[in-house]
Order: sequence, then C-alpha cells, then structure tokens
Amino acid sequence: MTERHFRSRRDSDAAGASIYALAAEIYPICRSITGDGVRQTLEILSRHIPIERTEIPTGTQLFDWTAPQEWSIREAWIKNEQGVKVVDFAAHNLHIVNYSMPVHKVMAFEELAGHIHTLPDQPDLIPYRTIYYAENWGFCMRHQDFEKLKPGDYEVYIDAERFPGSLTYGEYVLKGSTDREFLLSAHSCHPSLANDNCSGMALLTYLARQMSALPNLRHTYRFIFAPGTIGSLAWLSRNEGQLDLIDHGLVVSCVGDGGGPTYKRSRIGRAFIDRAMAVTLRDLAPQASLLDFSPYGYDERQYCSPGFNLPVGLFQRSLFGTFPEYHTSADNMDFIRPKHLALSWEIISYVIDIAESDWTPLNLSPKGEPQLGRRGLYGTMGGDKRTADQAMALLWVLNLADGKHSLLDMAERSGTAFRDIADAAWRLKNAGLLADAQALAPLEA
Amino acid sequence: MTERHFRSRRDSDAAGASIYALAAEIYPICRSITGDGVRQTLEILSRHIPIERTEIPTGTQLFDWTAPQEWSIREAWIKNEQGVKVVDFAAHNLHIVNYSMPVHKVMAFEELAGHIHTLPDQPDLIPYRTIYYAENWGFCMRHQDFEKLKPGDYEVYIDAERFPGSLTYGEYVLKGSTDREFLLSAHSCHPSLANDNCSGMALLTYLARQMSALPNLRHTYRFIFAPGTIGSLAWLSRNEGQLDLIDHGLVVSCVGDGGGPTYKRSRIGRAFIDRAMAVTLRDLAPQASLLDFSPYGYDERQYCSPGFNLPVGLFQRSLFGTFPEYHTSADNMDFIRPKHLALSWEIISYVIDIAESDWTPLNLSPKGEPQLGRRGLYGTMGGDKRTADQAMALLWVLNLADGKHSLLDMAERSGTAFRDIADAAWRLKNAGLLADAQALAPLEA
Amino acid sequence: MTERHFRSRRDSDAAGASIYALAAEIYPICRSITGDGVRQTLEILSRHIPIERTEIPTGTQLFDWTAPQEWSIREAWIKNEQGVKVVDFAAHNLHIVNYSMPVHKVMAFEELAGHIHTLPDQPDLIPYRTIYYAENWGFCMRHQDFEKLKPGDYEVYIDAERFPGSLTYGEYVLKGSTDREFLLSAHSCHPSLANDNCSGMALLTYLARQMSALPNLRHTYRFIFAPGTIGSLAWLSRNEGQLDLIDHGLVVSCVGDGGGPTYKRSRIGRAFIDRAMAVTLRDLAPQASLLDFSPYGYDERQYCSPGFNLPVGLFQRSLFGTFPEYHTSADNMDFIRPKHLALSWEIISYVIDIAESDWTPLNLSPKGEPQLGRRGLYGTMGGDKRTADQAMALLWVLNLADGKHSLLDMAERSGTAFRDIADAAWRLKNAGLLADAQALAPLEA
Repeated sequence: MTERHFRSRRDSDAAGASIYALAAEIYPICRSITGDGVRQTLEILSRHIPIERTEIPTGTQLFDWTAPQEWSIREAWIKNEQGVKVVDFAAHNLHIVNYSMPVHKVMAFEELAGHIHTLPDQPDLIPYRTIYYAENWGFCMRHQDFEKLKPGDYEVYIDAERFPGSLTYGEYVLKGSTDREFLLSAHSCHPSLANDNCSGMALLTYLARQMSALPNLRHTYRFIFAPGTIGSLAWLSRNEGQLDLIDHGLVVSCVGDGGGPTYKRSRIGRAFIDRAMAVTLRDLAPQASLLDFSPYGYDERQYCSPGFNLPVGLFQRSLFGTFPEYHTSADNMDFIRPKHLALSWEIISYVIDIAESDWTPLNLSPKGEPQLGRRGLYGTMGGDKRTADQAMALLWVLNLADGKHSLLDMAERSGTAFRDIADAAWRLKNAGLLADAQALAPLEA
Repeated sequence: MTERHFRSRRDSDAAGASIYALAAEIYPICRSITGDGVRQTLEILSRHIPIERTEIPTGTQLFDWTAPQEWSIREAWIKNEQGVKVVDFAAHNLHIVNYSMPVHKVMAFEELAGHIHTLPDQPDLIPYRTIYYAENWGFCMRHQDFEKLKPGDYEVYIDAERFPGSLTYGEYVLKGSTDREFLLSAHSCHPSLANDNCSGMALLTYLARQMSALPNLRHTYRFIFAPGTIGSLAWLSRNEGQLDLIDHGLVVSCVGDGGGPTYKRSRIGRAFIDRAMAVTLRDLAPQASLLDFSPYGYDERQYCSPGFNLPVGLFQRSLFGTFPEYHTSADNMDFIRPKHLALSWEIISYVIDIAESDWTPLNLSPKGEPQLGRRGLYGTMGGDKRTADQAMALLWVLNLADGKHSLLDMAERSGTAFRDIADAAWRLKNAGLLADAQALAPLEA
Repeated sequence: MTERHFRSRRDSDAAGASIYALAAEIYPICRSITGDGVRQTLEILSRHIPIERTEIPTGTQLFDWTAPQEWSIREAWIKNEQGVKVVDFAAHNLHIVNYSMPVHKVMAFEELAGHIHTLPDQPDLIPYRTIYYAENWGFCMRHQDFEKLKPGDYEVYIDAERFPGSLTYGEYVLKGSTDREFLLSAHSCHPSLANDNCSGMALLTYLARQMSALPNLRHTYRFIFAPGTIGSLAWLSRNEGQLDLIDHGLVVSCVGDGGGPTYKRSRIGRAFIDRAMAVTLRDLAPQASLLDFSPYGYDERQYCSPGFNLPVGLFQRSLFGTFPEYHTSADNMDFIRPKHLALSWEIISYVIDIAESDWTPLNLSPKGEPQLGRRGLYGTMGGDKRTADQAMALLWVLNLADGKHSLLDMAERSGTAFRDIADAAWRLKNAGLLADAQALAPLEA
C-alpha cells in the first residue's frame, strides 16, 4: 500500500444539484420495509449505478428476526356521511399508517378516532406512523383537519394486503485494488420523507457513480440500500462470513437539512473512521457535533451490535428526532437544499479521501530540519495565512515522520488540516525527503 | 456470584426520622477518644444492633502510636470573685477543652485568659478544642461572654483525671454469603457535635439494623464505631491479617446537614467504591462534589495510608471545615435535619446496592438487536421520559453485554442510572436474552 | 543518587540587575550567524564563565546543511542627491539586511525602493530582516522616513563581504557528580535585539557563573551559545555520539519582557523537563501558558527533530511573534526589565532545583500515619496559610512515599509546591521516617 495524492478538486454546486434532483425523483414513492416502493426506488437509482437487488423470502430467519410478509397498498380513504373523502392516501403517502391491514367498514366517529394519529402541537403536519409487527390499521392526518370532523358515521376503506413475498435490498460493490471494504449504508424504507432518507439514498448513489470513475481506489466500496433494521439484518445474515473485510463504515441518513453536521461514533469509539470523521469535521465544518455511540438510531445499531462490533459510525446533518420536521409531512423537498447536500457530500468525500490517501512516511533526513529553502519548499513562509499553513504542514510532517505517525496521526496531533498534511507529504516525497515506512518494512506490509 | 435484583423500594421519611431520633439520643453525651462517653454511646447503639466492644489497654502499641491514658471528667467551672460561675461544663460539654488535666486554683484574669478559647468572629458560639497529647487544661466559651469578664481573681476547678484504662471501639459484623467485606466506619470521639459525628454513628446503626433483615447479602458488612485516628489505628492493628478481605469501604461523617453531598475518593482513585459512588451521586444528587483523595480528613487517612491502601473513600454532606457550624456549638440538633439524613442514607444504600447487584451479563443474541417487541419488552418506547429511559437501558445492556462490561461499566458508559441498567438486565435475563458471563467461565468465578 | 535539600534562598534583585547589565553590554554588537559579532559577544560573556569557542569552517557539511560563508560588514548607507545620508548602518544595526552582498551604485528611487523594507503598520520602527541564503542586499528603515524620500537618484553603498571563514559557537560545561546532562541553549545570532536574544545569553551566563559556585551538582550542565538553526545543527553534528547523556534541556530566548511566561513542551511531551516546568510555572507563575510542542520556533526545532527527539523544551516570556516589538528596533533595552529577567532566572533556577533535588522516598512507618506531634512536626497545623501548607506537605509525602512516587510525582498529584514537598521530605528523612527507595534497591540504582 503506497501513498497517493489527496483528491482536492470538487464541484460542490453540481453535486448538490444532482443529488437534490435524484432525491426529488424518489421522494413521491410510497416505500415501506418491503414491497414495490422499495423496488421502484432501486430501479431509479439503478439508472446511475448497477445496483444488485436481493430478495429475501417472507419467513426467512434473520438472526433473532423473521423476514415479514410483504405489504402492498393501492388505495385508502375515509368518507364522511356526505361521501366526501376527508382523508385520502392518494393525496399523501403519510396518510396511511405504514403496514396497515385492509379494512372496509362504516363506523361511528368514536370508533374511527382510535385509529387516527395527529400531532396536536403541529396541527398543520401529517405524522409518519408504522405498524409493521401488529395486525392493525390506521390513518394519519393534520390535526387541524381532524378537528373539523363531525360526529356521525364514516366509511373507511383500505385496499392493502400482507402476503408471502419478499424483502428487498440493493447493493453496489465498487471494486478497489484491495478487498478491504468501506461500507456506506442508507435506509430505504421510509415513504415520502425527503431528508429521512431520500437524501441519504441520493447522496450515496451520486457518490458511487462519481467514485466509479476514479482510478486506483485502495478500498472496495460497498453501497447498501436496505430497509431499516430488518434490511441491515438481512444483509448481515447473508454476508456474515466476510464482515472482517470491513475496515470502515458509515450509515448515512438525513443529510439534506442545514443542521449539524453530526457524527455519532462507532461502538469502538476510536476506530479509524471515528478519528477520520473527527478530523474531517474539524477541517470542513467546525460547528459539527461529535457524539459518542449510543444504541438508538439507524442501522449502526445492527452493525455495532456486540456480535459484530463493526467500525461503522452514523453521519447526519441534524441529529434524528431533534428537528421539528422529523417524521412529519414537513420533511419534504423544501426542507432539504442542494447546498446542504453538497456539504454533506464534501464531508463524506473528504473522509473517504483520508482513508484512501493515509500513509506513514519516514523522514530520510531526520537529524535536524532538512534545508527546505534550497529545495524551493520554504520560500513561501511568511506569506498569507494559507501559505503559512502549508509551510507549517511541511514542518509537522518532517517532524513526525518517524515511521510511527500516519498522516491521520499527524493531522490529529498538529491541528493542521488533513489535506494540507497530505499535500505536504506529497511534496516532501517528491523532493526525496520522505520514504514510505511500510514499504521499507515489507514483512509487516 | 450471580446477578440479583437491585433493591429499589425505600422509605426515606421513616429512615430520616429514625436516624435523627437516634442522633438526638447520643448528642448530649460527653465523648472523647477514651472513656465512659464512648461506652455509653455504644450502649445506646447496641439497643439496635449487637455491637461488639473492644477495649485496648492504655500503653498498647498501635503501630507508631500508643493507646493513651483514659480520661474522665465530672465537673468543671470558673467562678468570679462573687462566687458566680462564669463558665460551667454542666451547661455544655464543649466548655471544657477535651482531655484537660485537673486543676483547682485561684488565679488572676491575666493568667486565666491564656487558658480560654473563643471565636472572635463567631462571638455567640462555643468552639470545640482538644488537647489529647499535651499536659494542659483549658475552657472554651462564647466570645461575647468572655468579653464581659472583668479583671480580678477567678477560681478555676476541673475535676478530671487521666489514668491507665483503655481505649474503646465497637464493631458489628453482618455476615453475608461471602467473606468479602464492605467496611463502614464512623468516628465516635466527638462530644456534643450533632453533624460531626452523631449523624454518622446514627446513620450506620440504622443502616446496619435494616440490612440485617435482608436475605442473601453478597458481602459481609463491617460497621466500625471508633475514636478518630487512634481508634481506627487500633482496629487496623488488631485486624491486620484480614485486611485483604476488604473490597469496598466508606468513612461516614457529617451526613446530616444540607450541603454537598461530597465524596472524596480513596487513595486508589479508581477503585470500585470510587466508581460506584460517582455513579450513585450522578443518579441521586447531581449537585454533588467529587474530590480526589488527599491525606487530610477523617479515618480514611489511616485506611488509605500507604501500608494499607484500602479502597475506602469518605462520604459527607458538607465537606469538613467548610461550614461555619463546623467544630462549634452551632453543630447541634437544629443543624442536622431528618430529610438530609434520609438522602445520605439513600445514597449509602444505593452504593451498597450497586456492590450487591453488579454482575457481568452476556448477550445470548448478540448479532443485531434481538426483537424486543415480540417479547413485550419494547412496546413502551415512545412513552413518557421514565419509560423511554427504561427502553434505552434495555438497548444499552444488550449492546454492551459482550462479557467485558459489568452493569457498573454500563452505567458509566451509557450515562443511564444504575438502577435502570440493573432492572433492564433483570428483565432481559428473565426473557432468556442474557446469561451470566462469570457463570459461563467457571474457572474464573 | 541520594536526596538533597531544595535550594530555596534567592537574591532576585541582584540577579535581575546583573543580567540586565550584561544584556546591555552585548546589545550594541552587530551579530549574525557568522562573523566577528558573535566572537565579540562570546568574548564579553567569557569574562564571566570560561566559554570554549568552536569554529566550523565554511563548507563543512552539517547534516543536510553546509556551513555558510562568513559575513562581515563595515559600512553601509544611502545618500540622496544632496549627499545627505538618508539611512546609515552606523546609526542602527538593523538598518542593514543581515548578510547583504556588497554594492556601490547610483540608482533611481524606483530601483532602490525594491531593496528597502519597512513596517507600514509600525511606521516608527525599523524591521529586522535577513537574507542568509540568497545573493542580494537590502536596507531596513522606519516607514515614516521612507515616505519622506523623494524621487531622484540615490547613491547606495554597502561595504560588506561574504568569504570562506567559519561559523562560531560557544559552550561552557559545568561538570556535576554524574555525566547525565542538563542542556541550556541560547541563540547568539541576532543583532541589536534586546529580548531576542541578549536576554537569553545574559541570563544563561549569569546562571552558569552562579551555579559554578554550587557544590555537589547532580547533573552536568552544558550551556550553548550558538547561531540559530545552523549553530545548533553544528553543535549536534559534533556531539552526535553523546546525545544520549542529555536528560533534560531548555532553549532560552526572549526572557526579559513582562509577558508570559511561556513554556513549549518538548516533542516527547511528558518528559521530566515538561513535567518539571509545568510544576515550576504552577508554583511560581500560575498565569503562565503551557503549549504543546510544534515544529516552528527556536532551536528546539533541531533538538526535537525526529532523528534526535531530545527532551528539550522552549522557555520564553512572551511567545515569539506575538508581541509588537518582536523583530523590530523596539526590541531594545527599554523593552526588557531587570524584574522580568529576575523572574525568568528564578523559574529556570527552580526547574534546575527540581532536577537536582528530586528523589523517591519510602515511608518507614507506612501503616497509618506516624505520630508527627511526638516528633515536633505537627504542632504547626492550624497556623497561617504557609504553615498549613507545610503540614499538608508532610502528610502528602508520607502518604505517597510508597517507593513508586518521586517528589515530582508528589508535587503533581498533591497540587503542593515542589519546594514544600522537598522540604517536607527533608524534614521527614531527618526524623527517621523516610528512606531513599533507590538506595534500598541497589541493583537498580
């Protein structure tokens, strides 16, 4: 494994626009943890990258879980005595409680009310509710509309079914020069919620397409699009034998709003991905929050369960559950913005660049400082801030290049941006002042 | 050693009232480091628990020290020229400098003044003074009374004696299912000072009586009531061969006022008792102060001397020396309150419960999360704060139950209350999801 | 190695005055990285201590560097068309760019201006500029004077030369009872800049003279006066075989102003010198700044390069580059003050005393506290602050004297001043309560 140049050129505006457009394309689909909504979504994403789809038959044992019956829904509404639809699934996917059983019945308002979910504190928003593992049904509606409902009889109709089918997940593997893996995982089960998680699926798809054009990737990149919890468990159960190939991983969700950024560390806490994300956020978004692992959240809960304990963290903008739009109809395409998606993409690209370009240099002139001026490396000292930072980066790399510090170690200790450390190491290597410590110790390489 | 349920039901009001009443009963006694005051005190405490009394003869070598002569006092006063008593030991035990030699003499005010101690900054309070290891005598009085004394002759009378006798300490050993010990130690030498340390003696007595009714204690509990410094040295010198049985210990003093709480760590600093007290105070009294060990204070000075280095910390409410009532007549029964004694008792009970109920679980379904909903363990998520905390506790226990984390480790890492962690582990064990890691490794058990 | 008494008597006023006078004596000399200025400076310092001078011939290889040509300058000025000198080296050493090539030429203002350096933001100050490794010339002047220059022709005259000669450094070795070394290094290359570094050279000279009168030094002290970078590289290249004798080291510069104090840790970060300086500054100057190592600064850059990695930190008052007088004509004899030099000298003396007097005691009465009162060591408790601190120091030393804590460890853990810890250990040793742990383990001594 040898050093490589840190990829520094970016076109953020184009990235933000492309990711936003893709998110908009998949936003209207009514996804769930199974069913055609997931398949349609993967089909759209597959126009950009060759996603491989896996179907897990209903009833398959997935560790402690079982693949559920598939769910499909065609139509759902409630009509009042005048025959007017007071709620209609056709108007918004969130109107139906996800995984509702079929029903067709006239009932009094009192009975109906027990099946209706609203947000009294956010009366103009439809909540998002699911009922995967119980046999029941329900509707979600704006509280302000609910309050207008009058006593009387209502006709309730849900044309849905649960049936033996399969659970679907997609993955795309981008082969690198080694089989050591970087896992990127987005949940694909939420219906029309833009941030949670059209944003994550679209960002990973754009990133995968773009990275597939890069030569000489050091890692193999695995992009997973799977329903939350049950989907990642399904993937884990089918890949249990090769999990030790995973060197780094990120769960990616809610990456389109303007909050955060937020990184929740892996259960390991000091894994390379945890350290690299801390440096990345320090370099690109110092306002970011770094959180210790906790066992509630997205699929990092499964990747980081004690039987796997993978080095997988969670990257988000606003932390789940902390923004008012969370799990409501306000998590729509107005809530996410191209510029926020662009920064999220920059951050993930940067941490990938760290994983790709980290190496451990050895100073070939370790006794005192080598004379940089003679080599044209030092004349810049004393200039503007950026130039001074680059000169300091040269001194830091030389000073710490004792074969025991990787570039990431150097970026951490020096407080200098990783990209400046990597550039400095590149220039010093080209000037003949550094060797690759690992290359010099072939037995350990 | 197997897991057990955290004892969570408490009756704080009853505890506070009982401890206060017992402290009030022993408050009037004139204690010292030897003598009948200590014996009377132990007699009163013995009505609640079977305290065993040890008498160490005067002159016995106690490491670098020697058991002192016993001291007794019957009467002490100062009369003015009119024969009026201007100070009288009968009015307050603190009027006499503890361990004063006998004297009966008429002397001028100028000579007398050299033997009188007052607090000019707290003119209405009598100070507490001792003179154990010098042959002298003295009186303590309110500065405001001292200032009223006129020049002239005074008759001074102290009917006291020092004589070959013995030093007395008491202990009560509550046997548990193992001989691993939890030491609880209160100094018994201070005369009428309510917080320092009638409060500590009364609390330990109440706790001991109450614990003696509990079945299946994991540890053996040793309650020591001994004079400060010389008493704990006496106990140590007679128990030197079995000190390695002590797993945990607390010195308990000044536990009746409304300050703190304060915990001073053992010299070891990261002993189980230090970690468990930190968690206890976080859970019950987040305003508490945690202090590093220092070699000044109460008998932890002896237990934590380098030749013993026992895992013994100091628990107090206000830290000694920091409250204005300290070592004055204002440290009386009005200064301590039942509700403060009750909280102190809750805290010590909680840390004992941690020591009793800690265990190391092993997740039997470690690959991904087990499906809690199916087992009726998860339906509660999303409810009120307490319910959500309990659900999080379930997730934390499952996630950290890799056989390397005890419940205390989990409570530390998760920030979740130990009682919630312990309850969650209990429920998961009952649901068949956890095993006892130690039971699975019998060679280490 | 046995314990010794901490040297506590100081005469700061005399030290400050002497150091200031010596700095004033060398201030007017026009030093550079080579040449007679350095030699004259060493000659003056040699009146106080027997400095040994080393001459490194031009062209000698010094690791990655080469000893440069020697530079000498006699005269330099610029005359306007009226023949009036508008800048004259005779007026201030800083007027000439250090290492300028010779020139004698009439040129238009436009051409001349490219060779003139000013500080527009500090118009009344002359900047300090050097040009060691390029063939060019230049003048420095007050911006306010530069702005008065009129268009027209100017006669420029620099009577200087670069020629094969030598680079000069001085050192003074004060032998102690062992060959373990304490290195003290000051750069000697700056012309008339009082703080940077007449102050450092004068302080080390005074300190060396004073220490040479002390009996029984444990360490050998090496004082180095060498041009920045190239000088320390020269010394390192000629002493490479004995660098492992260096136990502690300080680079000393800018020690005469009223800022800081500042200590920049060695690259090792937790070397004895780093810990001892932290304790010293805590004890003497709690307002001090402690900085982690960084590879920009003075000669610690060379001593701490990865090929040497010596335990050498940097001691300064204001950190270089952070005060407005830095590298200008305002860094003059008014900028440094005797009282600031005195505090700097106290600080360096204190850290030397720590290195000289540290030892590891063993409590001979480790079971409980020994009875200090009986030995006259404890009667002082309860007195004034200083007395109470001394009593606490006794308790700390006894408590930590388990053979695993040196006095420095104790000073760190206890928060007690090292001098109090050392005094307490001295008194306890004299009372027969402590032994020397190392003396008891002769095989390791």
